[in-house]
Amino acid sequence: MFNRRQLLGAGAALVSTAAWSKTANAGLPEAAIMETAATQPPLHPQSGPDYNPVVTLNGWTLPFRMNNGVKEFHLVAEPVEREVAEGMTAYLWGYNGQSPGPTIEAVEGDRIRIFVTNKLPEHTSVHWHGLILPSGMDGVSGLSHPGIPTGKTFVYEFDLVKSGTFMYHPHADEMVQMAMGMMGMFIVHPKDPNFRRVDRDFLIMLNAFDIDPGMYVPKVMTMLDFSLWGWNSRVFPGIDPLPIGKGERARIRVGNLTMTNHPIHMHGYDFAVTCTDGGWVKPEAQWPEVSIDIPVGAMRAFEFDAIYEGDWAIHCHKSHHTMNAMGHDVPTFVGADKRNLTKKIRNLQPEYMPMGTAGMADMGVMEMELPDNTIPMMTGWGPHGPLEMGGMFSVVKVREGLTPGDYSDPGWYQNPPGTQAYEWTGELPEPRKAADAQTQITPRPGSHNTAG
Amino acid sequence: MFNRRQLLGAGAALVSTAAWSKTANAGLPEAAIMETAATQPPLHPQSGPDYNPVVTLNGWTLPFRMNNGVKEFHLVAEPVEREVAEGMTAYLWGYNGQSPGPTIEAVEGDRIRIFVTNKLPEHTSVHWHGLILPSGMDGVSGLSHPGIPTGKTFVYEFDLVKSGTFMYHPHADEMVQMAMGMMGMFIVHPKDPNFRRVDRDFLIMLNAFDIDPGMYVPKVMTMLDFSLWGWNSRVFPGIDPLPIGKGERARIRVGNLTMTNHPIHMHGYDFAVTCTDGGWVKPEAQWPEVSIDIPVGAMRAFEFDAIYEGDWAIHCHKSHHTMNAMGHDVPTFVGADKRNLTKKIRNLQPEYMPMGTAGMADMGVMEMELPDNTIPMMTGWGPHGPLEMGGMFSVVKVREGLTPGDYSDPGWYQNPPGTQAYEWTGELPEPRKAADAQTQITPRPGSHNTAG
Amino acid sequence: MFNRRQLLGAGAALVSTAAWSKTANAGLPEAAIMETAATQPPLHPQSGPDYNPVVTLNGWTLPFRMNNGVKEFHLVAEPVEREVAEGMTAYLWGYNGQSPGPTIEAVEGDRIRIFVTNKLPEHTSVHWHGLILPSGMDGVSGLSHPGIPTGKTFVYEFDLVKSGTFMYHPHADEMVQMAMGMMGMFIVHPKDPNFRRVDRDFLIMLNAFDIDPGMYVPKVMTMLDFSLWGWNSRVFPGIDPLPIGKGERARIRVGNLTMTNHPIHMHGYDFAVTCTDGGWVKPEAQWPEVSIDIPVGAMRAFEFDAIYEGDWAIHCHKSHHTMNAMGHDVPTFVGADKRNLTKKIRNLQPEYMPMGTAGMADMGVMEMELPDNTIPMMTGWGPHGPLEMGGMFSVVKVREGLTPGDYSDPGWYQNPPGTQAYEWTGELPEPRKAADAQTQITPRPGSHNTAG
Repeated sequence: MFNRRQLLGAGAALVSTAAWSKTANAGLPEAAIMETAATQPPLHPQSGPDYNPVVTLNGWTLPFRMNNGVKEFHLVAEPVEREVAEGMTAYLWGYNGQSPGPTIEAVEGDRIRIFVTNKLPEHTSVHWHGLILPSGMDGVSGLSHPGIPTGKTFVYEFDLVKSGTFMYHPHADEMVQMAMGMMGMFIVHPKDPNFRRVDRDFLIMLNAFDIDPGMYVPKVMTMLDFSLWGWNSRVFPGIDPLPIGKGERARIRVGNLTMTNHPIHMHGYDFAVTCTDGGWVKPEAQWPEVSIDIPVGAMRAFEFDAIYEGDWAIHCHKSHHTMNAMGHDVPTFVGADKRNLTKKIRNLQPEYMPMGTAGMADMGVMEMELPDNTIPMMTGWGPHGPLEMGGMFSVVKVREGLTPGDYSDPGWYQNPPGTQAYEWTGELPEPRKAADAQTQITPRPGSHNTAG
Repeated sequence: MFNRRQLLGAGAALVSTAAWSKTANAGLPEAAIMETAATQPPLHPQSGPDYNPVVTLNGWTLPFRMNNGVKEFHLVAEPVEREVAEGMTAYLWGYNGQSPGPTIEAVEGDRIRIFVTNKLPEHTSVHWHGLILPSGMDGVSGLSHPGIPTGKTFVYEFDLVKSGTFMYHPHADEMVQMAMGMMGMFIVHPKDPNFRRVDRDFLIMLNAFDIDPGMYVPKVMTMLDFSLWGWNSRVFPGIDPLPIGKGERARIRVGNLTMTNHPIHMHGYDFAVTCTDGGWVKPEAQWPEVSIDIPVGAMRAFEFDAIYEGDWAIHCHKSHHTMNAMGHDVPTFVGADKRNLTKKIRNLQPEYMPMGTAGMADMGVMEMELPDNTIPMMTGWGPHGPLEMGGMFSVVKVREGLTPGDYSDPGWYQNPPGTQAYEWTGELPEPRKAADAQTQITPRPGSHNTAG
Repeated sequence: MFNRRQLLGAGAALVSTAAWSKTANAGLPEAAIMETAATQPPLHPQSGPDYNPVVTLNGWTLPFRMNNGVKEFHLVAEPVEREVAEGMTAYLWGYNGQSPGPTIEAVEGDRIRIFVTNKLPEHTSVHWHGLILPSGMDGVSGLSHPGIPTGKTFVYEFDLVKSGTFMYHPHADEMVQMAMGMMGMFIVHPKDPNFRRVDRDFLIMLNAFDIDPGMYVPKVMTMLDFSLWGWNSRVFPGIDPLPIGKGERARIRVGNLTMTNHPIHMHGYDFAVTCTDGGWVKPEAQWPEVSIDIPVGAMRAFEFDAIYEGDWAIHCHKSHHTMNAMGHDVPTFVGADKRNLTKKIRNLQPEYMPMGTAGMADMGVMEMELPDNTIPMMTGWGPHGPLEMGGMFSVVKVREGLTPGDYSDPGWYQNPPGTQAYEWTGELPEPRKAADAQTQITPRPGSHNTAG
């Protein structure tokens, strides 16, 4: 069941449109399939209104065909193997070879037709979260229309009457199918290409999986105690960085279909939510923030001008969500002398390990023997040592001189002299002794009175 | 202890005001009692300023008497039996025969006097959440005034100096008494009947109960792992629909006194929060949304013009909150071959059941033998099959030609031809072949630039 | 390891700057140490721009020295003993003798230099949450700079280019070090002393600890099921009140580095968020609220004019967060007859105690035998009896005639005659019979139309 259909594809093309034979399609648009978890370059519009295409971190955008003025897409719901990070693969349910599903991009005013083929062992449906559409196209199995049986293809068709950031996911056996990874983003670009235009536009779908160490399949009944927190079904250090040219305007759109709020914190900047899955937020209603709390069943897009160079951490601020799989019931006692205590505790709890009696930072460099198909609890290396992070973490890399549209990793930032924290050796280094020693940050005039 | 006092009432009147004898009352206003969990019609004002009365889903509004210019209400705190859905009753604590307590409605500028009789086995108090009032009327047992002992009646009296949506609940043994279901809404209508007037105004109090399958009483120490999520102490399919006439303006007010945020997602529309328990939100500060995240200890009211006909799901977007009682510790392995695996797992976990190896959608149609007083994990039928939903779920039914003020169920929506997702049979149906085939949605001009 | 270094200090000075010898300092600013958990008076500016200093509840502000135009601070990361409330001490990690660390106060436009000495058994770092600064000063261990090894001092230096409310905490072994209590607030006052000036400005850092009854050290792997919820590493009744003069303008700034949202509810008023850790919120974007939901990794400051006298509860509205340590797995059955049931349940669960069969309000007055170093589950006494509260709870005390800047406890509020809820004895007291009997609240004109 879990032989990846997409692995049957061959050749250099990452997006394979040849896996389905024309005969089998019976007039369906070919179903593009993604065979990698690498971030795919943006898919620029070939016709119709111009727009700046989005980039899905470790994901891709679904190609479409035009048919008599209608944009036609083909989604295939199916079991997939997703590389969560190097060394760990999860058996999930997704669309077109990956979880999350491919991003759908279209333009305000388009008519779209989406063919959904069900290759899962149970019926499914697709709800188009946030879109304005006819009641019968809403994808609530049993309410809007019958569920899509195994092996069948259903057709959804509607006009895109508003621009914004939407999501798609099953509304049939919803808890199970979303716990297995079925979700994707649906971007409707404004008809006016200058409306809220940005230079870089990143997409993140948040995930919570409960996969025991050494296992491959999420436990689908878990309500709270998830073990793996990710972005686009990847965990750090498996998540690509977000490169942005200095001075570019950037947008990051984050959708949450997990079971808890995730406060996405980005270092180095303040910014504002400019769009929800309900629409664009008026400038006068926006709040300055450094952590955007994304509610469940909601999307928040935030924007900023990338005026500060550097490597800026971006992560969920719930500290357990930047850790990979670990047990939460392990009795740990920081600061206790382990030799005496261990004996005492083992009388009560035989499985006790004297881990972390001096904190756990050493685990960032430790080589622990792990079960197969498991990634360390905290990991990832930066230019100055271990990052001690996992899960929902990446780095926004703001650099002078990036080529517009180039999303390749520019490497680590070199801190200019005098701008990096340093060890105290008894006296200030020379440049620090002068009161006019300059740091690289120039105050923005009036920044204290954001509120006017 | 749990013989429902209200069952002693007789006759057709749903609201019985005769259960307490005048003698026993000693001058108290009669305590109206509700004997059903059916949604009661709105209680229109008989005197004083006009207002559009609210409708509490599966609930009711408390009648009052005028006494020398003061509106007098009588709340009775007491054990109640609440039908949570057909087939399941919970033994809760509530007010006047039901949980949640009846909605209190009054008008800005009113002076009100509320008599609170305590028929619980321990002391209680009533805190008027969000209302501006004297410190001694604030209902914090021990701080504002002594708790109300068992068998006693206390009097609260204050002026309603602002309009809005407030709540009431005990502030004595608060964790326990709220876990048992003691809460209600308190609506203060604006003095100006045209201020933010709507045509339909629905009330929902969110609930989290922890009632084991086959049991009747909530476990009151549960902090996180609740088993039953509801609205107005009901769970789907026990929650009534929300009928709205096409073109009417509607408001839905949702109060949260549980232990976690609940993102209330409504399909088919975008909308904005127009009122919190702190007051009315200025139009320029409002955000477009499709899921309103209701914080704990807070209320959010949102409004929309019901311009799109149809059956629109409304539910909490935390997927476990649209499921009824189930164990969260059950080891489940979607996609695993159950025959071999079951044997292996049973060696480790004898209680393992090979449920859901192909997902769990079939449970929506399965007939499982359940313990007494239990409702299936996911249930509810729509016009096109099982909905596979429970808990915090209902349907907003927007229809042409509803009689204003008529809240009876209009039945299921019939999708107009060409507006329902359909099975692909090899070629497009006739109307779809033309590029100008119409769907029923008309773009709202400028909807992409909500932000101006 | 846990002998409090600060206990070696002697004399009346609460802030001891003599604990480190000048020789050992090697040119470092002396590291002020706090030896008490009592709220320290505000630290008024001695030079530079004027500002209204903040007051950290049960905390203090770190003194600084001027060095050639640079404000120099010295933080010492170290194990501390924190009195959580009378009768309970926790062994935490903090800064300069306490957890949370001292509040840092400076002024927009300042250049600051912060020396951080690491006396923990593992490396650490300090991230300056929300501040705009060079990438190399951002404190992400491994990314911005190497971690600070045990025994070493590192130097951070940057300009304060915007005013607002920020936080500091480790970004090295972050989950563990924050679970142990390492965090503090960083206030940058506006250069213009009249910008958003208030009369009282209180600071609260929220905490979640998992310390078993009778234990001293938090379990650092806990993700959800915390046992102790606090403010500034204190729990009620160990949290000081917030005295405010009638008519003064007050601000309360609340930072959240726990694992869940905390809705801070204040009685008696409505108010608005005026500042986040991202900056000041424009007046037209503010919402009226009575509960401010503080996301994780975020700060919310709210303001109000203290026009209503009284004792007003302020607390997290998650009801379990106003309780002290208790087991959440205890099977409890309110309303069940304990004599028969206990026998039956004990067959299944030998540890069952028939606690709370009539609710648990009696526990507020009960004398239970507790393990050492434990505080009762709910406690605290008010002027009218037990408050039945613990954890995240305190009282805002608004009084006529407080001396500006005096933060001492004014005692309990005396409700004026006729403004306190009272027992019903068969007829209204005299003043209540007249329709024009006055309560103390005067309507604010137009308060219903907050939204204009």
